[in-house]
Amino acid sequence: MTDTAFLEDFHAVSRIGATPANGVDRQAATPADRETREWFRAFAERRGWETRVDGIGNQFALVELVPGAPYVLLGSHLDSQPLGGRFDGAYGVIAGLHAAARIADRAAASPAAGSTGPAYNVAVVNWFNEEGGRFAPSIMGSSVFAGIKREDEMLEVRDLGGTSVREALAGIGYLGTDARPEIASYAEIHIEQGRILERDGIPIGAVDRSWYTQKLDVEVLGEQSHTGATAMADRHDALLGAAKVIAKVHEVTEHFEPETLVSSVGQLTLEPNSPIVVARRVHLVADLRADDADVVLAARDRLLADIADIADAYGLRITARDFDVRDNQHYPESGLALAEAAAAELGLGARRIRTMAGHDSVAMNRIAPTVMLFIPSVDGVSHCEREYTRDEDMIDGVAMLAEVGWRLVHGALQAELVAAPASAPANA
Amino acid sequence: MTDTAFLEDFHAVSRIGATPANGVDRQAATPADRETREWFRAFAERRGWETRVDGIGNQFALVELVPGAPYVLLGSHLDSQPLGGRFDGAYGVIAGLHAAARIADRAAASPAAGSTGPAYNVAVVNWFNEEGGRFAPSIMGSSVFAGIKREDEMLEVRDLGGTSVREALAGIGYLGTDARPEIASYAEIHIEQGRILERDGIPIGAVDRSWYTQKLDVEVLGEQSHTGATAMADRHDALLGAAKVIAKVHEVTEHFEPETLVSSVGQLTLEPNSPIVVARRVHLVADLRADDADVVLAARDRLLADIADIADAYGLRITARDFDVRDNQHYPESGLALAEAAAAELGLGARRIRTMAGHDSVAMNRIAPTVMLFIPSVDGVSHCEREYTRDEDMIDGVAMLAEVGWRLVHGALQAELVAAPASAPANA
Repeated sequence: MTDTAFLEDFHAVSRIGATPANGVDRQAATPADRETREWFRAFAERRGWETRVDGIGNQFALVELVPGAPYVLLGSHLDSQPLGGRFDGAYGVIAGLHAAARIADRAAASPAAGSTGPAYNVAVVNWFNEEGGRFAPSIMGSSVFAGIKREDEMLEVRDLGGTSVREALAGIGYLGTDARPEIASYAEIHIEQGRILERDGIPIGAVDRSWYTQKLDVEVLGEQSHTGATAMADRHDALLGAAKVIAKVHEVTEHFEPETLVSSVGQLTLEPNSPIVVARRVHLVADLRADDADVVLAARDRLLADIADIADAYGLRITARDFDVRDNQHYPESGLALAEAAAAELGLGARRIRTMAGHDSVAMNRIAPTVMLFIPSVDGVSHCEREYTRDEDMIDGVAMLAEVGWRLVHGALQAELVAAPASAPANA
Repeated sequence: MTDTAFLEDFHAVSRIGATPANGVDRQAATPADRETREWFRAFAERRGWETRVDGIGNQFALVELVPGAPYVLLGSHLDSQPLGGRFDGAYGVIAGLHAAARIADRAAASPAAGSTGPAYNVAVVNWFNEEGGRFAPSIMGSSVFAGIKREDEMLEVRDLGGTSVREALAGIGYLGTDARPEIASYAEIHIEQGRILERDGIPIGAVDRSWYTQKLDVEVLGEQSHTGATAMADRHDALLGAAKVIAKVHEVTEHFEPETLVSSVGQLTLEPNSPIVVARRVHLVADLRADDADVVLAARDRLLADIADIADAYGLRITARDFDVRDNQHYPESGLALAEAAAAELGLGARRIRTMAGHDSVAMNRIAPTVMLFIPSVDGVSHCEREYTRDEDMIDGVAMLAEVGWRLVHGALQAELVAAPASAPANA
């Protein structure tokens, strides 16, 4: 598979669910999401690869090198945020398909006798609902695969319109029943979504750990009344309380060193949402992240105190619930060394880097030796239409993933396989 | 028509679109709104009254006393806010129907010769979309009737789901083509939605004027980004800007004497509204009202300055547009005197009172001699399920409206008819 073929495929997928400002809108289990899945399946079938869909809509393409052996899994996700970027997730899946094809070609071109041949097969995955914009929590498909979330519970999660994951997946024809492949290791490549690689002029990031993250699910309960006729002193305005909470969620970052904590509210629903009615109820979700768990916990405690003060001041009832708490994940040292060796062999600069964003690899790292790679993002922006990564950086990343995958199918992280937690089997 | 018959009818209508907490949810042109219209039509048809529906969905029941004469119009609206109260609007329509029936009975029982008989007919109206919760602006049907709003423009107004007024009215079978009745005068009775009558222990309010009101339509434009991965300094968070605007819309009231100004945000939409995406756009509507127009204008100017500061501070673009501006409306002195005389004849206490809320009578007062009456509201609450008015207060109000209507059909405000503005004909 050539670099040109990769770019053609990448730009073809970018047209699925394309928005006028060069982004994509392909939320999980929508018609646009289905269309990317059809594209993925066609890619695999043209090469004679087996495809599977599991019970939570994860889609696999299996490339057999060693009959009966477990799989080195490469991939990411093809779903996007509403009006999201065309690189986030999609790059990793398409790079995974091309890397798998290169690994298969390289194995066919160099049949090795005995112990120098591949020890594992290779597979590519398109994880279901990494973004979580339509169905919370995010990182859903890989978390079910890793045994961190229960499949039956996730299938009952509903979007704001009341449609369940089960109904939405069935609706696009991707509520599967296939067995999950047994895996030996996992590798993912993704755009950085930050400015560090761009600033340093380095093409490859080897991710050493993820930030500690949690969400706060906040419900503000007031009393519905008339915006025109109710005395100000008699109002119990849930939207005013929510506005004060949103401001505090932002301001809490000022109590810590700059950029050690990020904290914002991105989702809010309002009832009854009428121009001349004081709101009865607001539901919102705050997202807090830091490298240091203690920073997140201190910010959370401060916010809970602020929220209690707001409830008192405005005659409201406000509840805040911890949700989607994710501990720091450390990727294995041996995987970092493997990535550095692969980059060196390809003549590509590489540095270690942390991820603030969540990724499917954060879930997979719990159950298998995992390598997480970054390529640069222009201006560090993501989850927006102007997200951008240059073609040459994408091409370097495909070469890098193919080299890492080649080493993995030859058993590079085989020792770590034993270290996978017994309580969370790969085929949960 | 007896008081018992009135209460039976009132409580029957309260069951249409009833909510578990004793409210109703009958937004304009929904199936529940259609059901109240069918009830209204059946009431009229049982009495042999003609019914009509005009091109904006206003529904009329016509009672002929003097063939060919114009009509004294009584009424209000049967639509409600989402999870609204069962009294707001519905009371005035049902009281209007019963008052009209009493006037017809009284006329039949006392046929008068020559100049002592009725000079006008009587009609009852159920105005379309007074509430404006689904389709803005509010007071839509009566404003079209009064020539203040254009029917063709109002028919193209869309709800948040994209459905137009025209489509919604056609969908419930109430996009009519009937001629509007020629009217001589208008009377409306409504719950106060404030605490003054309750506090003073007075059963009838004669409304002397409406507050000056305006809305501000605010759009906050930021940039979509990742709540987890984007540096705080790089965020342009439209929801944070909106939260600051909401707080200012509340705080502006503190710069004026207590309760001289009311100001709140009730409606807000957020894009893309995903838990892990910093918002790109927020649209919200602020509602400002005061008896003194200068107070509203001063508050508006202060808010525009605050909004400019917020845009600067958070790297946002914010626009604010004046919308739905309504000048103070003074109800005619002769109508107030008529109401006071009618109350005295019935032995009911009455006082003059202002309305902070908008009513269909505010529009009708522009084109015809208008009497606006209030009855008490327990705790002054409205636009909520616990809105409440006692049966005995409702019964007093029906008697009051029937007496006012009786005087109107006998030409009590006939002199004012000449004073109606020529530029806004009754049958606009």
